[in-house]
Amino acid sequence: MSRETDDLAELTKDPEDLEDLALGEDYALNPDYVPLVADALDRGDAERLRDLLSALRPEDVADLMGFLSSKDREELLPHLDPEALGEILSELDTEIREDILEHVPSATLAKALEEMDSDDAADVVDDLEKDKRAQVLAAMPEVERAAIETTLGYEEESAGRLMQREVVAAPQFWTVGQTIDHLRRESDELPELFFDVYVVDPAYKPVGAAPVSHLLRNMRDVPLAQIMEPITEIPVDMDQEEVAYIFNKYHLISAPVVEPGGRLVGQITVDDIVGVIQEESDEDILALAGVSDAGRDAGIFGIVRSRLPWLVVNLGTEALAATVVGAYQAEIAKFTALAVLMPIVSSLGGNAGTQALTVAVRALSSRELNAANAFRVILRELGVGLFNGAMMGSLLGAGTWLWWHDMKLAIAVGLAVLANFFVAALGGILAPIVLERMGRDPAVSSSVVVTFMTDFFGFLALLGIAALILL
Amino acid sequence: MSRETDDLAELTKDPEDLEDLALGEDYALNPDYVPLVADALDRGDAERLRDLLSALRPEDVADLMGFLSSKDREELLPHLDPEALGEILSELDTEIREDILEHVPSATLAKALEEMDSDDAADVVDDLEKDKRAQVLAAMPEVERAAIETTLGYEEESAGRLMQREVVAAPQFWTVGQTIDHLRRESDELPELFFDVYVVDPAYKPVGAAPVSHLLRNMRDVPLAQIMEPITEIPVDMDQEEVAYIFNKYHLISAPVVEPGGRLVGQITVDDIVGVIQEESDEDILALAGVSDAGRDAGIFGIVRSRLPWLVVNLGTEALAATVVGAYQAEIAKFTALAVLMPIVSSLGGNAGTQALTVAVRALSSRELNAANAFRVILRELGVGLFNGAMMGSLLGAGTWLWWHDMKLAIAVGLAVLANFFVAALGGILAPIVLERMGRDPAVSSSVVVTFMTDFFGFLALLGIAALILL
Repeated sequence: MSRETDDLAELTKDPEDLEDLALGEDYALNPDYVPLVADALDRGDAERLRDLLSALRPEDVADLMGFLSSKDREELLPHLDPEALGEILSELDTEIREDILEHVPSATLAKALEEMDSDDAADVVDDLEKDKRAQVLAAMPEVERAAIETTLGYEEESAGRLMQREVVAAPQFWTVGQTIDHLRRESDELPELFFDVYVVDPAYKPVGAAPVSHLLRNMRDVPLAQIMEPITEIPVDMDQEEVAYIFNKYHLISAPVVEPGGRLVGQITVDDIVGVIQEESDEDILALAGVSDAGRDAGIFGIVRSRLPWLVVNLGTEALAATVVGAYQAEIAKFTALAVLMPIVSSLGGNAGTQALTVAVRALSSRELNAANAFRVILRELGVGLFNGAMMGSLLGAGTWLWWHDMKLAIAVGLAVLANFFVAALGGILAPIVLERMGRDPAVSSSVVVTFMTDFFGFLALLGIAALILL
Repeated sequence: MSRETDDLAELTKDPEDLEDLALGEDYALNPDYVPLVADALDRGDAERLRDLLSALRPEDVADLMGFLSSKDREELLPHLDPEALGEILSELDTEIREDILEHVPSATLAKALEEMDSDDAADVVDDLEKDKRAQVLAAMPEVERAAIETTLGYEEESAGRLMQREVVAAPQFWTVGQTIDHLRRESDELPELFFDVYVVDPAYKPVGAAPVSHLLRNMRDVPLAQIMEPITEIPVDMDQEEVAYIFNKYHLISAPVVEPGGRLVGQITVDDIVGVIQEESDEDILALAGVSDAGRDAGIFGIVRSRLPWLVVNLGTEALAATVVGAYQAEIAKFTALAVLMPIVSSLGGNAGTQALTVAVRALSSRELNAANAFRVILRELGVGLFNGAMMGSLLGAGTWLWWHDMKLAIAVGLAVLANFFVAALGGILAPIVLERMGRDPAVSSSVVVTFMTDFFGFLALLGIAALILL
């Protein structure tokens, strides 16, 4: 324990001071709080741990877990409030959760799962090892177990996985008053929070939704059919990325999920979607950089696994591009300035290509680029490529002339930059579009294709043009 | 008009068919729908336009606008339902909105703004030119005008801009029944949708929130103080990125916004946050690729402006790195294989650096990386860099030996890759951390720094080591 942590521990004997210390102004966990907890764990000071934990909400405890070592996390477990265990578990990153779940007794876990929404509970069960999963499910009441098993039957990242099976539904012919009376009677059976009462027909197909604020503001004798709003149905097998697009587009707070026949089977609420949007953006950011998500708690080899594949692919394409250089070794030996300029030409082109493809990947994922405007966007990108190529080619050409006083070399490098920017624009816009058409994720493979193109053509353009006009 | 559009127009004479055609299964606008609208505009066929537009929700109309030319958009304006104008305007991208607003009469606009939430209305007013803004505001009732002017007084991208001033508040001592009666009485004055009734003390400071679903499920005589939940207050000057972090962390649906003194001044709802999260992620994705957002409707020169600055910076750093190559021209003339290998070494290092910095930027923005674990994460990155460097160095070394049968060259290139991966790891993890500490956005400048480092050291390592052991 460091000197500063010591001082801080001294200053925060009073539990009320801990609450001020725990979170920053932006409600993020204060980094200084982590060593206080680690220290209390080392000393096995249960009372201090209780004080430290009671200043945190379940989400903050989950956050804290992410900063503790695996050993500390395990030691912290018995000190957690069993009531909050479910909530803490549903906030944890998968790999940290898997690590923790091994140490939670099956009976405790079964109890925590009962209290959770079916989607969150299913996520946790999904992370359990086979034997433990069977034990935990066996310890749960029939209804909750069935809900979890049904949820796990849907494909990963589908609406079925995202939805909670708990919904509030009412028949079309009810009034506001009848609905409120029903809600008061069934209070114990309702989801913890809900935002819409779905109005269903006799076949349990949703025909509209009565927002709860509309139920509150209308008189008891108003029929639901009169205040209900049109719904946006989500098919149970829809991909979560599409669900997120729909929520974002129509600013939905909740939406009914329906089976292929149209029957209401659950609902998705916007708080789940916030997580999905973050997740999908993160996936794109990482994919564009050639990384897969290793998780925050991954060890060195977990990270190596998430990065090495793309590096190997990159070595392959780089080696292929380098064969162009190999073919012009004689010219380079005579004009070594070419070796100096070569990487600049390919790197500039690579950057231009990355700019174009990143914009295209983003536009495709937000549905701003499709068949209706693809032709116009492609032409515009080619225009930008030629213009930026002419600008950068002139700059590098001028620099070359100033340095080597060789007009032919300056012209060769200027033309090479221009040509490479054209290739970069072409690759940067077409690679994502073509990959998307082929049903591939354009964020994943576009970079490889475009970087290879700009390296290969960058070398070829500079060395080819130089060979023609210099020798 | 193309042959296919002709056929499609023939097939969709019936308005009901239009509804099926308008949106894809994922509720995105069908690309084929755009030429149908453009064609009806060309022919000035008002009836057809009415049919085409009535198959769309306001959000879809906004989407459609994005695919139309500026001229078509202007022609479409008079055909839009004036009731929906406000909603359509609040969905449009800024630059398209600015383009359209010039053509909407001030009186029409004032009317549309009255119907909107204060945050959305302020966004629209913010896009108006000075003269028109004065005209429009003058045509609005005092209360709505004041709300808009107050909102515009807060800094851009702050909670004050994001919040709507319309809130539902109730004193602590009310019961559920009193609250419901109040809501029914004031029905006309309430926000269109709300999710929480904020419970306030006599100084109008929020002390809790009663979720509307809790108001519905509890008996009339239950006091609000008994069912209210703790609140997460948002200071009115908080940055929107922090607000989004808080909503995401605590799964909030709405949160009260307070003035420095603690008085309730408005609320932020999660549907606004979904847009912010998307926006902030997009900013990061684009910044990492060295692009600023030009907007979907930008012309060639708008796009050039968003990309050229970074290309020029890149040319500068590349030229600086190339001076290393310039210093070793004599060695390259003798061993032209160095010219072949040089770009491979720098490019591999660049990729490794990009991987590390992207992961670090993402971890910083999600608060997963801070002072509590920085040291551990840095050590881990260095470990990964050394391991991946050793792997890739061996691979490229082996390839070099196979190709040139020169063991010294193979060793030189292998060591150079290893050294450059270490530099890449160091730069990739430290650049974002240091930039963040300096109060800069790590997504914007990290790439420049890291790419320069891996180019410079990549060249230096290969050529320096080669000069030592080959010559």
